[in-house]
Amino acid sequence: MNFHGGNIYGFQNIVDYSSNINPVGVPDSFKHAIIKHIDEFSKYPEISYEGLKKNVGKYLKVNKENVAVGNGAVEIIYNFFRICSYKKVYIISPTFSEYKRAAELNGIEVEEIFAYNFDTMNFDIDVVLDSVQENSVVVLCNPNNPTGSFLGKEMIIKFINYLNTINSFLFVDETFIEFTGNKKNSLSDLKLDNLFVLRAATKFFGMPGLRLGYAVAESHIIKCIEKITPPWSINSAAVIASEVIFFDKEYIKKTDIWLNEIENMYCLLKEVEGLKVFKSHVNFHMIKILYNNIDCIQLYEGLVSKGFAIRISEGFKGLDKSFFRVAVKDDINNKKFVFTLKEVLKCLKG
Amino acid sequence: MNFHGGNIYGFQNIVDYSSNINPVGVPDSFKHAIIKHIDEFSKYPEISYEGLKKNVGKYLKVNKENVAVGNGAVEIIYNFFRICSYKKVYIISPTFSEYKRAAELNGIEVEEIFAYNFDTMNFDIDVVLDSVQENSVVVLCNPNNPTGSFLGKEMIIKFINYLNTINSFLFVDETFIEFTGNKKNSLSDLKLDNLFVLRAATKFFGMPGLRLGYAVAESHIIKCIEKITPPWSINSAAVIASEVIFFDKEYIKKTDIWLNEIENMYCLLKEVEGLKVFKSHVNFHMIKILYNNIDCIQLYEGLVSKGFAIRISEGFKGLDKSFFRVAVKDDINNKKFVFTLKEVLKCLKG
Repeated sequence: MNFHGGNIYGFQNIVDYSSNINPVGVPDSFKHAIIKHIDEFSKYPEISYEGLKKNVGKYLKVNKENVAVGNGAVEIIYNFFRICSYKKVYIISPTFSEYKRAAELNGIEVEEIFAYNFDTMNFDIDVVLDSVQENSVVVLCNPNNPTGSFLGKEMIIKFINYLNTINSFLFVDETFIEFTGNKKNSLSDLKLDNLFVLRAATKFFGMPGLRLGYAVAESHIIKCIEKITPPWSINSAAVIASEVIFFDKEYIKKTDIWLNEIENMYCLLKEVEGLKVFKSHVNFHMIKILYNNIDCIQLYEGLVSKGFAIRISEGFKGLDKSFFRVAVKDDINNKKFVFTLKEVLKCLKG
Repeated sequence: MNFHGGNIYGFQNIVDYSSNINPVGVPDSFKHAIIKHIDEFSKYPEISYEGLKKNVGKYLKVNKENVAVGNGAVEIIYNFFRICSYKKVYIISPTFSEYKRAAELNGIEVEEIFAYNFDTMNFDIDVVLDSVQENSVVVLCNPNNPTGSFLGKEMIIKFINYLNTINSFLFVDETFIEFTGNKKNSLSDLKLDNLFVLRAATKFFGMPGLRLGYAVAESHIIKCIEKITPPWSINSAAVIASEVIFFDKEYIKKTDIWLNEIENMYCLLKEVEGLKVFKSHVNFHMIKILYNNIDCIQLYEGLVSKGFAIRISEGFKGLDKSFFRVAVKDDINNKKFVFTLKEVLKCLKG
C-alpha cells in the first residue's frame, strides 16, 4: 500500500496538517501567468525543455546543462534509479518511502541505515560511515522527512569526500531546503562528480499539483536521465510557472516571514502534556506520543473528527505507532490545531 | 535524436502544421474551470486518481476499474512496455516512433512490419498475419500517424480473435479516434483479455500541454501498470480538465462541424501539382512529393521562411525524404497554407 501525506480525498472541510506544503498557497504570480498564457496548453511543451531548465538554472545559479527536470521530484527519483549502475543503495532512515520503492523496482539491493539519533535529534553520521560499503549510492533526505533533522553543508562535504574514496555516490533530496531559511544550505552549487541534488517547486512554492521537480548533477548524469525520460513529461502549467515563481520576490519574502511560525508552533507543541516534540529545521514537526495506551491512528481518528488531518507513521519504516508528523501552517490555524490536539489527547487518555 | 511534430520553439509567428492538434483550441470549459479551481494546485492530487478515472470511465462508458491514467499517452506507452511479459513486439509501420523506443528501453525485441499499402492507402492485414509469431504483442496505431489510414472495427476484432489463438496481444493507440467522427469506431468497449486501448485528451481536446492520457484494459493489467507508476504522475490541471472537457458538448459540437475541413483540405491538396495526397480518415494528411529534385527538408525550409511548419518524414521509419505530413486547421489558414505550399514547390522546382 502506498501511504503518503496529503491524501485527504473523501473528507470534507479538513485542515490538512498531513502534507508539508507552504501555507502561503499558490503564488499570485502563477495565477496571473496561467490566465495570461492559458493557450500554451494547445502546444506541445518544448521537447528539450531548454527554457524551463534555463529558469531553474537561473534560480539555483547553475548552468542549464547541469539541470534535469521531471514530472515532480518523484519522477526524477524513479529515473535516477533506472540509470543507476551501482548495485547497492543505502537509505538513511527513517525517511520518505519512494527511494526504496524506486530502487527495488529497478532491481537494486536496498539497505536502510537507521541512523536517526532520537536524543541528539539528528542523523548520526558515524553509524552511516560504519555501514556503507564500496560502489554504492547513499540516499540522504536533507532536511529529512519526517524527522525534520538537518545536516550542515560542511559535514556533508566531508561525507561526500569519504564516499569518493570508496567509489560511492550521494543522492541528496533537498526538496525542503528553502524552509531552512538560508539559500546557502543547498549543495546544488558544489559541482561534484559523485553528487546528485534533488529539488522541487512542490513544497516551497506551495504547489504539489504542479508536478515540477528538478535536479542538479554532472552533465553526463543529466544526459543519461534525459535519455530514458519519455518526451513531454512536464506539463504546460509547470513550464508557465517556471517563468514567474522562482523570481516572485513578494512570495519568497512572505514565506520567509512565515518561517517564524515553525519555532512558534514548536513552542506551542512542547507545552502539550504527553508528547515529545523533536527539534525541527523545517516546516513540519515529528512528534512522539508518550502515553502507552494511545497510538497515532487513534489520534488521527480523533483529530479528523474535529477537522484536522495529521500524518501517521505508517509508511515510515523505523517509526512505531507512537509517532506522527504535523505540518506548520498560519498562526491562527496552528493555535486551533494545538488546542484541538490537547483536547483529543485528554479525551483519549481517559 | 528525438524527432516529433510541434517542435516550433525558436521560431516566431509560425503557423504550426506539424502537430496534429484540434484547432478549435483550448476548451472554454477548461479555461473557466482552471481559474475557479486554481487553488487545487496547492493540494497533492488524489493518489489513486479515483475521481479522474471516474470521469474518463464516464466519457468512454467503461468501469473505472478498467481505466489507467497517465502523464500523457506517452507515459502509458512506456509503462505498458515495462510490465510487458511478451518477448517480442511487432509494430505495424510506418508509425509513431515512441512504441519502438519504449519497447527497446525495456529490452523487448522489436520487429516493424511495413504493412502500409501505398496503393490501397491502408494497412494490409494479410502482411501482418503472415509475420506475427506466437506470444507477441502487436502495436497498431488506429487511425495511424502519419499515414492517416484507418482499419474498421470488424476487421480488427477478427484480427484480435486470431491473435488470441496464438497467445498474442493487441495494443491499439486510438489517440486520434474521435477525429473519425464516430464514437463507435473505438475498441474501448470490447472488454477483451488480449486488448489494450490507448486514448488521450491531447489531440481531440486540443491540449498536448495538459499531459493527460488514459487507457482501457482488463483490470489486472491496469493494476500492474498502477503498481509501477510513480505517485502523483498526473498534474492538477489535467484533473481539473477531466471534470469538464469530456462533457463539454459545445466544444465537441464545434469540433464535429470543423471535421469537414479534413475533406475540404484534401480536395485543395489534391489539386496541387507534383504531390500525391494519401486518403486520410483524420485531422492530418500524409503527402508524397513527386518531383525527384525536391525533398521534404527543402520544402520544410521553404515553408518555414513563409511562416508555416510541416512535419518532415524523419523519425518515421519506412518513409523516405519525399514524404511529409500536414495538419488540418481552419478554412482560412488551410487555404493560405495550400497557396503557400504551391508557391514554395514552384520556386523549388525551378
